[in-house]
Amino acid sequence: MRRVCFVLKVREERLAEYRRRHAEVWPEMRRALSESGWHNYSLFCDERGMVVGYLETEDFDAARAAMDKTEVNARWQAEMAPFFEGLDGRPDEGMIPLTELFHLP
Amino acid sequence: MRRVCFVLKVREERLAEYRRRHAEVWPEMRRALSESGWHNYSLFCDERGMVVGYLETEDFDAARAAMDKTEVNARWQAEMAPFFEGLDGRPDEGMIPLTELFHLP
Repeated sequence: MRRVCFVLKVREERLAEYRRRHAEVWPEMRRALSESGWHNYSLFCDERGMVVGYLETEDFDAARAAMDKTEVNARWQAEMAPFFEGLDGRPDEGMIPLTELFHLP
Repeated sequence: MRRVCFVLKVREERLAEYRRRHAEVWPEMRRALSESGWHNYSLFCDERGMVVGYLETEDFDAARAAMDKTEVNARWQAEMAPFFEGLDGRPDEGMIPLTELFHLP
């Protein structure tokens, strides 16, 4: 399993709504993620809207490509796009992995 | 297990050295972390020195307190302190957990 971490920026004034939406992610979206190889996937935020994602996957490019083929992901990303700052495209296309510099099992 | 994520800022001009140091963390430091309840612990960075930490632990306060009792942690944190920006004290004391807003097993 590869560990992946990325950072996104949610508009501070929409953070509360972003959190509410993520407390009730559609079951079909959760299922699509699992079936696409997104495991142990968490999102964290600070109070200013910095959002950190962490997941474990065999191959992040393949996991993103698999999600990209699902109809539910297109719907979800279209609804999430207005929450983000500094993204031209869809939020899932702005998930640039950071570099892992340390790991302890 | 609780999932914990925190963000620190390393001085950009010292990031390469910070990465080198973390490629060879002292075995006794790794052992102390494991014995103190730090599991699946990773550090990630971007090119400007933002460092994201992720770990899983039963109780983060207890895991930090257990590390705080070890002699090796005092030595390690003293050596790491000059790498960081915006921290008055030791880097391990600046690890403020973000808020988890989503999790998929």
